[in-house]
Amino acid sequence: MEKVNFRTQVLTRHLLNNDHRGTTATAGISTSPCLSYTPPELSSKPFPFDVNSMRKLMDGHNIEDRDWLFNLMIQSNLFNPKLRGGKIFVVPDYNQSMEQQREITMKRIQYLLDHGVFEGWLTGKGFDAEMRKLALLEVIEIFDHSLAIKIGVHFFLWGGAILFFGTKRHHDKWLKASEDYHIKGCFAMTELGHGSNVRGIETITAYDSKTEEFVINTPCESAQKYWIGGAANHATHTVVFSQLNIDGNNQGVHAFITQIRDGDGNICPNIRIADCGHKIGLNGVDNGRIWFDNVRIPRENLLNSVADVSADGKYLSAIKDPDQRFGAFMAPLTSGRVTIALSAVYSTKISLAIAIRYSLTRRAFSITPNGDEVLLLDYPSHQRRLLPLLAKTYAMTFSGNYLKLLYVKRTPQLIKTLHVVSSALKATLTWHNMRTLQECREACGGQGLKTENRIGQLKGEFDVQSTFEGDNNVLMQQVSKAMLAEYVAAKRRNKPFKDLGLEHMNKSCPVIPSHLTNSTLRSAQFQGYQLAEDLGRAYSDRLILQTFIEAENNVTDTPLKEMLGLIRSMYVLVTLDEDVAFLRYGYLTVEAAATVRREIVKLCAEIRPHALSLVSSFGIPDAFLSPIAFDWVAANSWSN
Amino acid sequence: MEKVNFRTQVLTRHLLNNDHRGTTATAGISTSPCLSYTPPELSSKPFPFDVNSMRKLMDGHNIEDRDWLFNLMIQSNLFNPKLRGGKIFVVPDYNQSMEQQREITMKRIQYLLDHGVFEGWLTGKGFDAEMRKLALLEVIEIFDHSLAIKIGVHFFLWGGAILFFGTKRHHDKWLKASEDYHIKGCFAMTELGHGSNVRGIETITAYDSKTEEFVINTPCESAQKYWIGGAANHATHTVVFSQLNIDGNNQGVHAFITQIRDGDGNICPNIRIADCGHKIGLNGVDNGRIWFDNVRIPRENLLNSVADVSADGKYLSAIKDPDQRFGAFMAPLTSGRVTIALSAVYSTKISLAIAIRYSLTRRAFSITPNGDEVLLLDYPSHQRRLLPLLAKTYAMTFSGNYLKLLYVKRTPQLIKTLHVVSSALKATLTWHNMRTLQECREACGGQGLKTENRIGQLKGEFDVQSTFEGDNNVLMQQVSKAMLAEYVAAKRRNKPFKDLGLEHMNKSCPVIPSHLTNSTLRSAQFQGYQLAEDLGRAYSDRLILQTFIEAENNVTDTPLKEMLGLIRSMYVLVTLDEDVAFLRYGYLTVEAAATVRREIVKLCAEIRPHALSLVSSFGIPDAFLSPIAFDWVAANSWSN
Repeated sequence: MEKVNFRTQVLTRHLLNNDHRGTTATAGISTSPCLSYTPPELSSKPFPFDVNSMRKLMDGHNIEDRDWLFNLMIQSNLFNPKLRGGKIFVVPDYNQSMEQQREITMKRIQYLLDHGVFEGWLTGKGFDAEMRKLALLEVIEIFDHSLAIKIGVHFFLWGGAILFFGTKRHHDKWLKASEDYHIKGCFAMTELGHGSNVRGIETITAYDSKTEEFVINTPCESAQKYWIGGAANHATHTVVFSQLNIDGNNQGVHAFITQIRDGDGNICPNIRIADCGHKIGLNGVDNGRIWFDNVRIPRENLLNSVADVSADGKYLSAIKDPDQRFGAFMAPLTSGRVTIALSAVYSTKISLAIAIRYSLTRRAFSITPNGDEVLLLDYPSHQRRLLPLLAKTYAMTFSGNYLKLLYVKRTPQLIKTLHVVSSALKATLTWHNMRTLQECREACGGQGLKTENRIGQLKGEFDVQSTFEGDNNVLMQQVSKAMLAEYVAAKRRNKPFKDLGLEHMNKSCPVIPSHLTNSTLRSAQFQGYQLAEDLGRAYSDRLILQTFIEAENNVTDTPLKEMLGLIRSMYVLVTLDEDVAFLRYGYLTVEAAATVRREIVKLCAEIRPHALSLVSSFGIPDAFLSPIAFDWVAANSWSN
Repeated sequence: MEKVNFRTQVLTRHLLNNDHRGTTATAGISTSPCLSYTPPELSSKPFPFDVNSMRKLMDGHNIEDRDWLFNLMIQSNLFNPKLRGGKIFVVPDYNQSMEQQREITMKRIQYLLDHGVFEGWLTGKGFDAEMRKLALLEVIEIFDHSLAIKIGVHFFLWGGAILFFGTKRHHDKWLKASEDYHIKGCFAMTELGHGSNVRGIETITAYDSKTEEFVINTPCESAQKYWIGGAANHATHTVVFSQLNIDGNNQGVHAFITQIRDGDGNICPNIRIADCGHKIGLNGVDNGRIWFDNVRIPRENLLNSVADVSADGKYLSAIKDPDQRFGAFMAPLTSGRVTIALSAVYSTKISLAIAIRYSLTRRAFSITPNGDEVLLLDYPSHQRRLLPLLAKTYAMTFSGNYLKLLYVKRTPQLIKTLHVVSSALKATLTWHNMRTLQECREACGGQGLKTENRIGQLKGEFDVQSTFEGDNNVLMQQVSKAMLAEYVAAKRRNKPFKDLGLEHMNKSCPVIPSHLTNSTLRSAQFQGYQLAEDLGRAYSDRLILQTFIEAENNVTDTPLKEMLGLIRSMYVLVTLDEDVAFLRYGYLTVEAAATVRREIVKLCAEIRPHALSLVSSFGIPDAFLSPIAFDWVAANSWSN
């Protein structure tokens, strides 16, 4: 609807400008000094396929819920609406101090709560509730990463810990109260001294059978909880990850519920809290540090789905092996990697929609003397910069949808697959996002640096994604390790591959350098091998293509199918071209590689006329893009 | 000196901690829960070469002036000194609003002015004055990019325009007044509608022979001056770039001096000024927009080194061809590209010094059960991430020094060479900086996102470099175009190559795909060709290597020479490995490429023990690094 209104405005403006545009169109820049804005809708071909169908295919689910939430945000002044060039844009004011950004973020959460956005996020059961929650979180991400992360910490980390690590007694007591924000939760796992290596955390918890309480301690400075979102200002409760010491035996990492603030926001006794300070992004999230000084909590506050301690202090667990217990604790945390991967794709879409719309209205240099200047996207070099990234973003959208379903429909048998797929896609999609943001920022020139134009700001806001919830490089090494272990194991037991997405290897055996043996895998030096990187990337690229093809196969609409075919070809050829491994390991000859490159240039020219329709299919309302995506001359006029 | 003090502090702390460190050293993490900080100076080998000599070799000149200015900044509270972990760090407070950052930046300039930093920056003559100015600007960059850019706009753009485009009457009137900041200058070239394509600017100036005045106009919104540093708040005068219209003939782009504010900061009549708003970095620079409404200036305000207008309105120029006149105007602006390239290298050094020092004190995961966790830089993957970038930074330092001398000693004959070299190095060195900042940010994990740790913040502050003073991609296309044009021309006139750094091609003719002819060069499609990118990069890589070898040849100190040899090998092999063109065009076989990769891993292991000495040679005082580069446990302790 908003698009229709926009198109009408555009046509009116066009008719009014008609004379003037006539002159610029016919005469050269040197004789007619005035540039004017021509909406890409007028200079582009009519959409060759149904944009709404394409949007439905990509967003995948809960379309109406998404649009409802978009409008909910547009309607409130809390979301900082600004009129620029005759259009409203909602975007946070990043010129606010960290303290101001934190307060407005909390107010926005209250507004969303009051309007029922979070209904069923923790108490809802089943597939539909889960999908609605994920759809709405994606929409929130499109407005502001801080807002989404602060909500994600409360519902996915705090709430998820209660759901997955807790049992009925915890669910009854905490879930509804959390969903209604009667309590605000945070998630105290990372410490100053230990991030990726959770096993190494130093916080210690002992059990006092006299009082039937656990006693939590921060034994040294490196054990202080660090980066805890929500801890600095707002959280009232936290899940504490700690070594559990029973009668002098360390039973490994366990999770406990601890209150850190009272209802009035006063910090509880024996708790010390400090701020993590200003960051290059996400300043709407109040990351804090926590110290525990003999903090006593009731025995019932141990989240005991995996292990428990009896009133008289006996350690009880169905899982004897501490390693397996640790694994059981970590498994549910894949939700973090899933939502990160999904949000990365939407951030990519924002930047491509803005940069491509701008490249369809911004001209630079003329080819003929006194001729009109050329639209940026009509330069082969500009097409080569943006259109392959556009194709990759489509492909990654489908892999994101696949990951989402794999997560929501997960079974115990598929936990390992989910771990590998979510690790591979979290790393690949977030790297793609950062790369695309940088390319789009540069493609917009200086305008890409203006905070109001979003792209540059998104770089700072999303940079965290490549290292939190698992450093991307470490995750990719885990993926490669799993691949090679599976390979070696399957060869040993002489059974076909299954579950990990290696089934295609049952047909033909891939060439893997002989020096990579099982023992190599176990050595630390393994991490130095280039092949580890290549293998993880190859796995992701293949997985993404597979999900693309599956999505394509379900499409019946012919124009849609044809467009997807073009984009798939671009994705495959660009992947072949960018992954040096194909040349490096001799899978591509020099001649073949050259042919691939030439074909990519052709595909750029073929996709160019559809660039506008392809970004219009992202389903992001104009108000969530930025001034340079529309009439940037009017947006910068003196009267504005 | 500061380093010595630090080493002493360190040793003392070490002796006090000795018992405690003993336990962690011997027992594993699981039994001894406390991490402690061990200074890399203690865990690293003694410096194998003289760090001060290496620093002198790299900084190249005015060492004492640099240290004087470093200390000048450390001594003033204006530079926001903070005590963290027992050490003082000076770094701007980026949690301040744009308005606050602009005001403190102006105060810092006043402080530097009062202490004589700018003496001779515009009135000084000769080599020594020029080199002192460049050295001090590099030091200022190390503290804050905003401060350096605001100073650079005033001295290099405004001051440079007066020096190069003006004549005696302008020099006498403006240079000393500018050096003393009695007037504050800015540089109004870029417009909303035209950035890279300066020829296309739309501002129009006519001449009124009755009053002997020029009349400047902004004919439309797209002609508003945009991104003008200093215009939003502080500048009193500007150089205006405008089409000059004489009797209806457009004589092309010329430069005029115009006052925009009076001494009290009030905007002058017929001038309108607006703000460019918040940016993702450089918020200490007040970028503004300017409109001119029949602004009248005296005839003498035309900067007339290239062309003049007589009192009765005759256009006079020694250069008849407008294209050549335009070129004459642009040539001196290379100073911008030179200073950008130089500052990019120092930004890279800050991030590498911090990330490598951190990787020598931060541990993650243990290889053996209950064994000590491993230092980040002892992981081959971490060495592979950082050490090649370290080697490249050394190489680019030498190319920067070469560029600096080429600029300071420039002659009319070498203007074209200077244009090509400065374009190639500006693009290559700024891309290297952004890539290194991102890699170092991720290598530091979450700590890389904390503003106080500088690396992440530098990304936002320096991002602008890849597009201002010429978009990197456009610059590289110009380099490639110059190379190929020179190649075609030399072949046609059958004379050897000279001046452009192609002399090596006089010996053997390089393989260039046959379809690249002279006519191809002139077509816009040329810009689509991959080879254009490859060629520009190849030229830069070779140039950088050449400057490295020349610097190396002048070194007599044996340990220094040996270390440089190692670094040179790393630079060459990593360049061979990263530039796909070698495989793509068949210059490297698959086997050779594999050998190169293996050799790089070996070199990583050989350079690893010297990592600390290599970053210690950057000559950046501890106070300009960040807390994670030193005792980050103490810096984060509750008491801090």
